[in-house]
Amino acid sequence: MGFDFAQIDRILNARSIAIVGASNNPLKFGGMLTASQLTMGFAGPVYLVNANENEIMGHAAYPDLLSLPETPDLVYIVIPADRSLEVLEQCGRRGVRGVVMIPAGFREVSEEGKGLEKEALRLARQGGFRIIGPNCFGIYNPRNRLTLLPGVDFSTTPGDVAFLSQSGGFSTHVVRLSQSLGLRFSALVSYGNGVDIDAPDLLRYFGRDPQTRVIGAYLEGVRDGRAFLDALKKAASEKPVVLWKVGKAATAQQAVMSHTGSLAGSAEIWEAALRQTRAIQVSGIDELCDVLLTLRHLGLKPGRRLLVSAGGGGLGANAADLAALAGLEIPALNEGTGRKLTEILSRAGAVVSNPLDIGTPLLPPPMFEAAMREAAANPNTDVLIFDLAMNFAMRMAGEEGLYQVADVLIRVREASGKPVVMVLYSRACDADDLEPERILRQMRAKLLEKGVAVFPSMRRAMRAIALVN
Amino acid sequence: MGFDFAQIDRILNARSIAIVGASNNPLKFGGMLTASQLTMGFAGPVYLVNANENEIMGHAAYPDLLSLPETPDLVYIVIPADRSLEVLEQCGRRGVRGVVMIPAGFREVSEEGKGLEKEALRLARQGGFRIIGPNCFGIYNPRNRLTLLPGVDFSTTPGDVAFLSQSGGFSTHVVRLSQSLGLRFSALVSYGNGVDIDAPDLLRYFGRDPQTRVIGAYLEGVRDGRAFLDALKKAASEKPVVLWKVGKAATAQQAVMSHTGSLAGSAEIWEAALRQTRAIQVSGIDELCDVLLTLRHLGLKPGRRLLVSAGGGGLGANAADLAALAGLEIPALNEGTGRKLTEILSRAGAVVSNPLDIGTPLLPPPMFEAAMREAAANPNTDVLIFDLAMNFAMRMAGEEGLYQVADVLIRVREASGKPVVMVLYSRACDADDLEPERILRQMRAKLLEKGVAVFPSMRRAMRAIALVN
Repeated sequence: MGFDFAQIDRILNARSIAIVGASNNPLKFGGMLTASQLTMGFAGPVYLVNANENEIMGHAAYPDLLSLPETPDLVYIVIPADRSLEVLEQCGRRGVRGVVMIPAGFREVSEEGKGLEKEALRLARQGGFRIIGPNCFGIYNPRNRLTLLPGVDFSTTPGDVAFLSQSGGFSTHVVRLSQSLGLRFSALVSYGNGVDIDAPDLLRYFGRDPQTRVIGAYLEGVRDGRAFLDALKKAASEKPVVLWKVGKAATAQQAVMSHTGSLAGSAEIWEAALRQTRAIQVSGIDELCDVLLTLRHLGLKPGRRLLVSAGGGGLGANAADLAALAGLEIPALNEGTGRKLTEILSRAGAVVSNPLDIGTPLLPPPMFEAAMREAAANPNTDVLIFDLAMNFAMRMAGEEGLYQVADVLIRVREASGKPVVMVLYSRACDADDLEPERILRQMRAKLLEKGVAVFPSMRRAMRAIALVN
Repeated sequence: MGFDFAQIDRILNARSIAIVGASNNPLKFGGMLTASQLTMGFAGPVYLVNANENEIMGHAAYPDLLSLPETPDLVYIVIPADRSLEVLEQCGRRGVRGVVMIPAGFREVSEEGKGLEKEALRLARQGGFRIIGPNCFGIYNPRNRLTLLPGVDFSTTPGDVAFLSQSGGFSTHVVRLSQSLGLRFSALVSYGNGVDIDAPDLLRYFGRDPQTRVIGAYLEGVRDGRAFLDALKKAASEKPVVLWKVGKAATAQQAVMSHTGSLAGSAEIWEAALRQTRAIQVSGIDELCDVLLTLRHLGLKPGRRLLVSAGGGGLGANAADLAALAGLEIPALNEGTGRKLTEILSRAGAVVSNPLDIGTPLLPPPMFEAAMREAAANPNTDVLIFDLAMNFAMRMAGEEGLYQVADVLIRVREASGKPVVMVLYSRACDADDLEPERILRQMRAKLLEKGVAVFPSMRRAMRAIALVN
């Protein structure tokens, strides 16, 4: 079926929903989804459907779709695969336009499941509705407050990152981790087996969606390689697309087949095909989120010339190795900058060079600010990176002193207009000492809110900057 | 000077020390070291020397080395470089046998500094004592409770990991991080410029030291490549040596020169030379600690055949990719194991294969235990890895349920005798929600104490296992 922007848009922005298989049992998927959706507070009627219950979590339950007072925009099916087809048949009769099929048990498990899936698609075509799934977690949209299974704690603040995912589990991981990093979503679709609405449709949709500025995708395999590549090329020519493709190894291909019934395809073919697109390829959830964060705060192609600063010679030497590995540059300081930094840091035991060793983990704030302003203003610097040895610094200056470091970097970022990155970690990870972690998270939230990107290691910062260049 | 086991042994196990440059000012290195050492509670007299003070942190101060009531085994010098030579001269006169020179300002900064360093060495030879440093943080030894600058919070429980490091900062980072991972040290030496006792001496020492079972090293450069390689070869033939060598990139070589005045040497020469040894090469502090942890719980060469289990198909598919990347194997399940797992997991929606998708993040404990026992017993499994999707699991089972997961893995490890690894992370990293982090650390501490290795990501687990094989 051809791509239709309006159809997908109507599903994602549904104004009324029904949950078939809603349940009082919090351990069932139907109970989990119901609880999540009620907690999230969907912006419209939520009809709970279960033939065996009169009331679910304090709300009236309906025996079937046909007895609902209105036709919902979107129906969630959360009952076992073999019983889901009759619900699809009812969807057609009722004039429903969109369905999310949560259950597994289709083409990923057996020939029989493959037959069920085919029949589901036939019913959709016959009934004039579109399907997301099966074998998925569904939709998250902060605008109308649709949420994933079990995304009770997802933010209701809309943002500009869209995400599509064949894995339900990774969908929720990506939202949680991204939220901690201050990223917000336009929408997310966990589409599982993608029997009807598939990766190419979602890429085209988010490529055109004006709310979406960056697209992320977790992909196991595709059915129609040509259609996928065309859609990816088009989307990536319009906005950054960050693609995490798994299933490159032979053993992974087997795992992919039992997970979403997809053909993962050989690593070589994928490499060659993806090189034709502008998609940014990442590997793993951490790298994915690092790149989304980098795109937000540094933009596409911020430049490869770094000025790396830290309190300690080892940190700088290691950073220089990592930059070379990532294909980034650490050019010599401009002469004027070097002179000014030498003046500012004359009493600190600093080594004025690039990497810039400020001599101690923590300088007095006015000296630190003067130095960082000069460093950011250095003409051949594209990105300023500061690596804080937090365990030392905390001992030297305490909590308030650390927040002052954050404030300095925020001001330098604002004044210079150049991207500023902070590498922030704690080496104190004892079970009974959560204090450094608490302070670190407060600092990170503050920095991220004001446009300073934060990474948990120099290696990850370098890798992410290299990927967006 | 030739290698002398007894000399280094006497320094590291000193029974009396003097700190020249002890200070009441907590922001000075002399103050920091004094505070750290007094807090740590050195197992013998600590003589504080400062000509301008009568009392330091509640203890009597001496004007100089010559006025001490006895000759200390070890003298720490924490005064500026240019004034340190006269103290060395006093050391010789007093018959001191070991000196740690903390200050920077020697060959890493200038020709003049180079001259000072030469003179220091001459005084050592003339006075019959050995020097650690200069430009270093000194010694950490939990047995006599010598500590680093500023290692106030280092454990006083001895262990079997030795560490030598040219960087003082990384020394303290390595101790803190390792301690969180349940690793304990036989001793650590931050040796900086290594004017006298240098990397080859320390490698030979720890190679022979019966308390040390594993040696780690952070290295920027060496003076005598042949001596270093010989010592490394010898040490690595006796016990595992984990080597983190920085300064491979050209810009890093400049940074290394200003940090410890070392010639880093080209990447190619190093690669070729190190291949002749059995040293395990790592890159970065996280990888270093991951490998130390792996050696502790899995030993050298645990085997490359993994059984990877997780609740979710995406986790397994991704793990299979990572294993291939790391050169590890995920062989098909033995037929008998497959049959038994299918029986055990028949109701769970599991995909019985390798990777093994248990169908849900968390099974009822008896079912989980039965499955993990079978998985560990699988004949072609060398290492069992379980990846817990903690955010899901916590919602399903709460804190106690998570600790039960840990208990199951501990029992499986004990019963099977095979290495068991847990991948444990939280995706909930919001500033105001430290609860998942608290539970995670409690779980990790419990697991590590009982011999189950824990890693924060599947990628890091795979990489570390590959490195020790």
